[in-house]
Amino acid sequence: MHDLARRLWSIPRSITGNGVRQTLRELQNLCPNLTIHEVPSGTEVLDWRVPDEWNLRRATLTDPDGCVVADTDINNLHVVGYSEPVHRLVSLEELQNHLHSIPEQPDAIPYVTSYYERRWGFCLAHRDRESLKPGTYEVKIDTRLTAGSLSYGEIIIPGDHPDEVFISTYVCHPSMANNELSGPVVAAEIARWLTARSKRRFTYRIVFIPETIGSITYLARHLSQLKERVRAGFNVTCVGDERAFSYLPSRNGSTLADTVARHVLEHASTAYTAYTWLDRGSDERQYCAPGIDLPVVSMMRSKYWEYPEYHTSLDDLDSVVTPVGLAGGFALHRLAVEILERNSVPTTRVLGEPQLGRRGLYSTLGAGRVSASPVLLLDVLSFCDGKYSTLEIARIVGRSFFEVADAVDLLASHDLVDVIPTFA
Amino acid sequence: MHDLARRLWSIPRSITGNGVRQTLRELQNLCPNLTIHEVPSGTEVLDWRVPDEWNLRRATLTDPDGCVVADTDINNLHVVGYSEPVHRLVSLEELQNHLHSIPEQPDAIPYVTSYYERRWGFCLAHRDRESLKPGTYEVKIDTRLTAGSLSYGEIIIPGDHPDEVFISTYVCHPSMANNELSGPVVAAEIARWLTARSKRRFTYRIVFIPETIGSITYLARHLSQLKERVRAGFNVTCVGDERAFSYLPSRNGSTLADTVARHVLEHASTAYTAYTWLDRGSDERQYCAPGIDLPVVSMMRSKYWEYPEYHTSLDDLDSVVTPVGLAGGFALHRLAVEILERNSVPTTRVLGEPQLGRRGLYSTLGAGRVSASPVLLLDVLSFCDGKYSTLEIARIVGRSFFEVADAVDLLASHDLVDVIPTFA
Amino acid sequence: MHDLARRLWSIPRSITGNGVRQTLRELQNLCPNLTIHEVPSGTEVLDWRVPDEWNLRRATLTDPDGCVVADTDINNLHVVGYSEPVHRLVSLEELQNHLHSIPEQPDAIPYVTSYYERRWGFCLAHRDRESLKPGTYEVKIDTRLTAGSLSYGEIIIPGDHPDEVFISTYVCHPSMANNELSGPVVAAEIARWLTARSKRRFTYRIVFIPETIGSITYLARHLSQLKERVRAGFNVTCVGDERAFSYLPSRNGSTLADTVARHVLEHASTAYTAYTWLDRGSDERQYCAPGIDLPVVSMMRSKYWEYPEYHTSLDDLDSVVTPVGLAGGFALHRLAVEILERNSVPTTRVLGEPQLGRRGLYSTLGAGRVSASPVLLLDVLSFCDGKYSTLEIARIVGRSFFEVADAVDLLASHDLVDVIPTFA
Repeated sequence: MHDLARRLWSIPRSITGNGVRQTLRELQNLCPNLTIHEVPSGTEVLDWRVPDEWNLRRATLTDPDGCVVADTDINNLHVVGYSEPVHRLVSLEELQNHLHSIPEQPDAIPYVTSYYERRWGFCLAHRDRESLKPGTYEVKIDTRLTAGSLSYGEIIIPGDHPDEVFISTYVCHPSMANNELSGPVVAAEIARWLTARSKRRFTYRIVFIPETIGSITYLARHLSQLKERVRAGFNVTCVGDERAFSYLPSRNGSTLADTVARHVLEHASTAYTAYTWLDRGSDERQYCAPGIDLPVVSMMRSKYWEYPEYHTSLDDLDSVVTPVGLAGGFALHRLAVEILERNSVPTTRVLGEPQLGRRGLYSTLGAGRVSASPVLLLDVLSFCDGKYSTLEIARIVGRSFFEVADAVDLLASHDLVDVIPTFA
Repeated sequence: MHDLARRLWSIPRSITGNGVRQTLRELQNLCPNLTIHEVPSGTEVLDWRVPDEWNLRRATLTDPDGCVVADTDINNLHVVGYSEPVHRLVSLEELQNHLHSIPEQPDAIPYVTSYYERRWGFCLAHRDRESLKPGTYEVKIDTRLTAGSLSYGEIIIPGDHPDEVFISTYVCHPSMANNELSGPVVAAEIARWLTARSKRRFTYRIVFIPETIGSITYLARHLSQLKERVRAGFNVTCVGDERAFSYLPSRNGSTLADTVARHVLEHASTAYTAYTWLDRGSDERQYCAPGIDLPVVSMMRSKYWEYPEYHTSLDDLDSVVTPVGLAGGFALHRLAVEILERNSVPTTRVLGEPQLGRRGLYSTLGAGRVSASPVLLLDVLSFCDGKYSTLEIARIVGRSFFEVADAVDLLASHDLVDVIPTFA
Repeated sequence: MHDLARRLWSIPRSITGNGVRQTLRELQNLCPNLTIHEVPSGTEVLDWRVPDEWNLRRATLTDPDGCVVADTDINNLHVVGYSEPVHRLVSLEELQNHLHSIPEQPDAIPYVTSYYERRWGFCLAHRDRESLKPGTYEVKIDTRLTAGSLSYGEIIIPGDHPDEVFISTYVCHPSMANNELSGPVVAAEIARWLTARSKRRFTYRIVFIPETIGSITYLARHLSQLKERVRAGFNVTCVGDERAFSYLPSRNGSTLADTVARHVLEHASTAYTAYTWLDRGSDERQYCAPGIDLPVVSMMRSKYWEYPEYHTSLDDLDSVVTPVGLAGGFALHRLAVEILERNSVPTTRVLGEPQLGRRGLYSTLGAGRVSASPVLLLDVLSFCDGKYSTLEIARIVGRSFFEVADAVDLLASHDLVDVIPTFA
């Protein structure tokens, strides 16, 4: 995953344009079942309209001495996203109105965009900005803002059942690592892993979209289908560093996705931070909006806004996002999928406790406290009344889903319980 | 309000009689829409009977040296309320059985009544009682206890809707300030303010009654109407000092009145004390009784029983009740009314987040964390699914009702939400 | 109760056999309404089968010097329960495979059984085991394991109503005191006390059974009747020491039995430990199993597993179980029964607060805070709306059931409330 992120690093992504297309094609190499879709500029999508397509060739800012002080060939964060084309000479004074930097982080190039109002600008490390000399600067922003289309990728991996698990990630940020390259590389890895599974209970829908306008566009095209089929959804973002685990709930807060995510995170190696709906900031804003109400949550490492390198050039693949961090982000989603695939409602076939001893499941020598395993079997059996799912039983008995699911399987193999898969 | 309290101070109020009538007439000067009602002695009201009317001309206690040691012309707390007429000479020893004082508060004249059993007595500061000399005392209690009527005041302020807000306060206590003159003066001010409003959603019913027997009498006369119409009610008492804010819930505990009162108090400048139904002690005892179940709460400053001057001559307009204290008590009720008048269920008209930017409601320059106002707009919008009232949204997003109501109004002005007034 | 426990002490009980029968006959002397039932070996009961009957004459272990080092005539814990008959010479080395002791408690003879697999063995204090000399030992276990029957006792004490309170205790443990002789002696005392009552609202069903196989057998024979009639049940175990009070909930956790037990324990003289369903270990495992779901809880002194002498010879009638401990265990169940017998739904007959003063229930001299008793009357009355039982009102007003029931009775004697007995 870390290598893939490096390959995608310098592609100049935005919410539309060839950067997104090139990124999607790279992902297609890895996931041949990924299809690329184009939605024309101007298409009405819910309350929005697909904007003109923006393509960047190169943007440079040259100082009075002829030195290039900002160049998107070196770092594509140097230009304000969706900058209009400009080629002219400006004084430093005028230029300042078009410069962005962060005084508190003097070495960070900030990430700035102006999608829905025409502007132009450069982003610089504050230290560099402060050393700019008075005089005349050459601004050269070679971009095109023309009718085109919005691109997104989609993978449908069929399962035994039309009920769906929905996985969404975004591909609109230029060279930053935790937010966002970690999202698409982890989502692609999930897609590869799911495609390779011999059997899937759920159908999986995995989309690679530009944030906000992409989820709005996707909802506009698929809303009734999504509302009908999606049982759990995950917005995959900020899954690449090693510093934290984080949870962002759905608006509803108690959907299947929330329950599964909380279980996974509670049984993770380190404590996690549970944010609230009021802390949201990504595509759950659309997926969980009133009248849409998809069961979408985020399981993250360090959440957007909450780490110092967020939305700057410091969010990189060296000091922030690591192979171990990405593996942890992937593991959260793999475990969630495994729970969804394996969750069931077990129902006892006997009245009272079964005689485990004659089935070899219980010590026949009674001497005080029994060993852990039969206790777990009996605890689990005591909730097999058809009212609780394996996941709910795991919560009640305070064990991991997988220990309880193993116990259920053992009981089923002895004909002690009936097991009905559950999708809810 | 403090001046009005001074004017009402020395009127010798009790649960019946001219003291109540005179008080109601003073309030009528201020609120011409106040009507005065009389209910004859002996009338059966629920489990009770309206008692004979009690009128005090003057009561004096003269010591063996001819010095007047208690005189209701000086402080009308000196006589036990509802004392029967007496004029005789008694020894100090016999007199002691008729004297009331508080050893722990030697300078306080206690407030004592005997409404439903014939007695007579004097109330004295304990310091004065201890200096009484042996000998013969002249007891002169010039009262009349005769058939008459119970008086109460009522103001009906019509609104657009027959649903009512019920405000009740009591006018049966002689010269004490927080309990009770603060109640009627604040309630009168609420009545004046409501009458002057250009528009009212609710109809307001404001009553000035003697405590207990008055609320029982009023309920006996209006029960079915009150049960049908009242959506929220406030028993206005102990609203005049500056030392505390207090909340006494309805028996139900989660009526609209409870929700509004808790919201107002949570957003008050200082912390408040939340009492329970078991701490009750005023007319909510009747209004919330089984089978009556009106949604009546109290928002108070220092609650009855809970401040040292309670039910003594120390509860005065100088050291206890102040203009600032009364203004705070009034403000609680004004804010509660404003919430009730303005509460609504907002429902979004768009799917997904609307594009606030093109409506001038959101910065078009994306650079990290957005400013507070659009965040509040989006937080509020995210709960505009027709399931939550403005008041409930305010609780969920942790803001004051008024901030959220302003946001709802702004959204409505951009046709982003439909707003349905709610009375529940 | 302590004397009865002494009389039952040395009877060699197991889950079947003459030890149980002799114990039941001793209890019958005390409770003539106890009937003894026999269920033949081999009978299928739910998922189980009644095992062969086991009878012990004597088991001895003689060392190479001819010294008897274990003798069931001295302590019947010395033989593994359900040991098969053996008479042979074995080396110490071979013998060690058949010995049981507890290194951490070198003076304790452990309690070990092997009901469902044929074995033989001796239990020794670890100190004695360590001093065994090398050489040849004579093993003499004079037991019979033959078809016979499982015995249990049952007492039905009829009441005014067919709804039942179910009390279960077990009689399968040899010489141990808290677990278990405390159970049957307290249950027998409850039976005597209930039989002697002049009047019972509920019918009482009290059973003395072997643990696990006995409750399974009893359920197999009476399930539909129990499910239909039992409103509350108590598994009486570990009710004899003075060190703790403990509560083990039903699986459901909020049945009438749970509510009553928690109330009794909350008002006990000392704090109690509330265990969870996951801490269970006795016949509630059967009574509360899925599909059976009887409302059965345990109110205990020191719970099984939780005291150091548990399941060893140290659990005796001298240092562990005391007359005071047993009296406390009995009191918990007597109070629970008294609550069940007396619980009702009181409904006010007046609207608003009644005039307590004219009924002599309230001071007619109003002077501040009223005394405790009328406050309780008014607090109770305020919940007499037909929605709350006396027990629920007690919880809400924070008083003991009996104080509130006395208040309800006083109100009823003044025709202020109607009282409907409740069985739920």
